[in-house]
Amino acid sequence: MEIKGFTFSAVEASIKKPGRLDLALILSELPAATAAVYTTNRVKAAPVLLSMERSVTGISQAMVVNSGNANACTGKQGMFDALETTRLIAERAGIAEDLVLVASTGVIGKPLPMEKIRGAVPGLFESSALTDLDGLARSIMTTDTFPKVASCSGEAGGFSYAIAGVAKGAGMIMPNMATMLSFLVTDAAVDPEYLGTVFRDAVDASFNIISVDGDTSTNDTAVVMANGMAGNPTIKEGTPEALRFEKHLRETLLSLARQIVRDGEGATKFVEIRVTGAHSVSDAKKAAMAVANSLLVKTAFFGQDANWGRIIAAVGYSGAEIEQERISLSFDDVLMVSQGVFVGGDAEEMGSEVLRKSEFSVTIDLALAKGNATVYTSDLSHDYVSINADYRT
Amino acid sequence: MEIKGFTFSAVEASIKKPGRLDLALILSELPAATAAVYTTNRVKAAPVLLSMERSVTGISQAMVVNSGNANACTGKQGMFDALETTRLIAERAGIAEDLVLVASTGVIGKPLPMEKIRGAVPGLFESSALTDLDGLARSIMTTDTFPKVASCSGEAGGFSYAIAGVAKGAGMIMPNMATMLSFLVTDAAVDPEYLGTVFRDAVDASFNIISVDGDTSTNDTAVVMANGMAGNPTIKEGTPEALRFEKHLRETLLSLARQIVRDGEGATKFVEIRVTGAHSVSDAKKAAMAVANSLLVKTAFFGQDANWGRIIAAVGYSGAEIEQERISLSFDDVLMVSQGVFVGGDAEEMGSEVLRKSEFSVTIDLALAKGNATVYTSDLSHDYVSINADYRT
Repeated sequence: MEIKGFTFSAVEASIKKPGRLDLALILSELPAATAAVYTTNRVKAAPVLLSMERSVTGISQAMVVNSGNANACTGKQGMFDALETTRLIAERAGIAEDLVLVASTGVIGKPLPMEKIRGAVPGLFESSALTDLDGLARSIMTTDTFPKVASCSGEAGGFSYAIAGVAKGAGMIMPNMATMLSFLVTDAAVDPEYLGTVFRDAVDASFNIISVDGDTSTNDTAVVMANGMAGNPTIKEGTPEALRFEKHLRETLLSLARQIVRDGEGATKFVEIRVTGAHSVSDAKKAAMAVANSLLVKTAFFGQDANWGRIIAAVGYSGAEIEQERISLSFDDVLMVSQGVFVGGDAEEMGSEVLRKSEFSVTIDLALAKGNATVYTSDLSHDYVSINADYRT
Repeated sequence: MEIKGFTFSAVEASIKKPGRLDLALILSELPAATAAVYTTNRVKAAPVLLSMERSVTGISQAMVVNSGNANACTGKQGMFDALETTRLIAERAGIAEDLVLVASTGVIGKPLPMEKIRGAVPGLFESSALTDLDGLARSIMTTDTFPKVASCSGEAGGFSYAIAGVAKGAGMIMPNMATMLSFLVTDAAVDPEYLGTVFRDAVDASFNIISVDGDTSTNDTAVVMANGMAGNPTIKEGTPEALRFEKHLRETLLSLARQIVRDGEGATKFVEIRVTGAHSVSDAKKAAMAVANSLLVKTAFFGQDANWGRIIAAVGYSGAEIEQERISLSFDDVLMVSQGVFVGGDAEEMGSEVLRKSEFSVTIDLALAKGNATVYTSDLSHDYVSINADYRT
C-alpha cells in the first residue's frame, strides 16, 4: 500500500543482536499534522520527554526509532543522546530539528550506544535501506514474534487516501499504554487539532483496552502523522468525512492492538472480556480490567480450566458496584453462572471445550444498568515467565 | 505451647484428596472476646457472610473450618450449608449456635459436600481428633507446602498468657487480605472493644503488607479469640499491659504473614521492598505495592536479574509522587541507582550477587519527604503458573 509522500527506511545499527534491524526512519516529504499519546508513567524516557515537547506544535516531518535500548533512566546524557539522534536525522534530511520526533524501546538504564547510531544514520538515507511497512514493523520489534502492521483506505471529497500503521508489543501491555510503540501515517489532509482529538479517542478505544501483564512502560509512544498529500479538502470535525476517517483510524488502531495481545509474551490464548449491565461504563471497564489482569484468571486460561469462580472473584475486588446474586457469566455462548451461582449440568464440560480454543470470549453481565466495556487480554504461560526472567541475559 | 481453655481438633472429611486433614475445630471452654477481619471483596463466600454477622457481638466460642471447598458463589444453598455446619458443631459442643464462627477455603462454586461434613463432625469431638497447632495448621492448607504456626507468651498483672496462631496462604495473597485464613487464640483476658482495634491495626501491619499475586479472595478471614483463662486482669487500652500485648500480637501476625510470603505459590525468593523518603506513608505504600505486584519485577527476581529499571518503572506508574532525578535504589546494601541513574562500575555484578540469595531487600529512596513503608513479596516462577493452571485438575 502506498501512502503518498511517506518513505520508510531501516538499518542494522547493531544495538540489538547482529542480523536484526534496529534503527528506522519514517520521513514525510512535507511537514505533517501530528498527534501523539505518551506513557502516563511518571518515569519517562528521554525520547518521550523530547517528543512530548516537540509534538505539542501539532506538526512534524520525521520519526526516528531505535530498538534494543530504551534510553530510559539515563539522566542528562540520555537527553543529549536523544537530541543528537534527531539532529543527525534533521541534518541529513535537510529539515528543521524540531520536526523530528524520536522513540526508543529496549533495555532500561543503559546509555544509548551513540557511536553505533552515528555510524548507522547515513545508511537510513541510502536507497538500500528503503523498506515497506513490514520492514518498519520488524525494525521496532523486541520480544515480539511477528511484525504488526495494519492499513486501510478511505475517501474524502472525491480523493482516496490511505492510513497505515505499525506497532510493537509485547510485554508491559496495559491500559494507558504499554512498551508499546505505534506509528501511524496517512496521506489524508486532516485538521491538526481535530487529529489530536480523534487520535486520543481512538487510542482509548484500542491500546487502552488491552492488557498483557498490567505493567506500564517508561517509553510508550503512539504517533500519527497526516501529510495531506492525498490532495483531499482538509478533514474537519463534525463532517461526514470526519466520521469515516475516525472509523478507519479506529479500525487500524484496533487491529494493531489486537495483534499486540495475540503476540503477548508467551501468550497461547486471545481472550475478549466483555462486561455488560454495569452501573456505568467506568465500572464496566474496572471490572473487565480486573479480570484481564488477574494472574489467577490468566493462569486458568493457560490451563484451559473453566474456572469461572476466579473471574467472579476478580469482578468482586475490581471496585465496580455489583450484586453477587445478579451476575451471570458465559464462555462464548455457554452459560456458566446465572444469578451468581453455577448453572450445573454439562456446563463445566462445555465451558472447558470453549477454553481449549485459542480465541474465545468471556461475558460477564452484572444486570444492574447499561454500562458496557470490552477488553482484550491473553493468558499467562510458562513462556511469559521464561521470557521475562531471562530478558537481559 | 498451652493456651488455656482452647482445644484444637482435626479430621479427614474427604473434602480434599484422601489422607489429608480437611475439617477442623477450635473450641474454647468459655465464650471468648473475639475480633475479626474479613475480605474486602464484594463477592463474599457464605461462611464469610455468616461469620461477619456473628462476630459483630465481639464474642464467640468456636471456629469450624474446612479446606478443599470455599463455599463461595454457592447462592442460598451455600448459606444453608454454612448454617448447618455451625449448628452441628453447636449441638455437639452444647453451646449457642451464634457463638460458632465458620470459615472455608478451596474451590469456588461447588456446593459444600454436606454429607461428608455431617459424617465427619462427630469425629471432631473424639479424643483421637485432638491435635496441636501444627495439626490445626495442616488441616487448613490448600496449596501451602508447609503449615504456618506462630506463638509467643506475655505477662499481664503477674499472670502469664500465651498467644498462638495458624495461617494458610498461599495464592491470592494481596493487601486487604488473601485466601488467607488465620486463626489466633490467646488465654489473656482482653477488653473486647480494645481487641477489635488492636487486631485491625495488627492485620494492617502484617497481612495487609504482603503480596504474592495481587488477587483478593472471596473467603479471607482472620480471627482472634481471647478467652481470659490466663486469669489476668482484663487488658485495656492505654495501659503498659496493652502496649506489650499489642507488640506480641503484631509479632505473631507478622511471623504468620512472612511465612505466607515465603510459601507463596512457586516462590523461590523472599523479598522485602522498602520505600523511604516518600511524600506520605500512603505514597510509600503505593510505590512499594506497585513494585511488589509488578509481574516484570517478580519474573526478574525469579531470573536473578538485577533489573532495577523495571523497579523504577513500577514506582513511576504507582501513582506516588516522584522526581525521577532524586530516586536512589539498593539491593541489600549495594547501591544501584543514584539520582535516577545507574551508578555504573561493578554495581551490576554485585547487585546480581544479591539477587542470587533466597532472601534480600530492595530499598527505594524517593528523597522527597519522610513517608516510609515496607512490603513483603515473592518472585513469580514457572511453578506459580503450573500450580494455578492445574489447580482444579
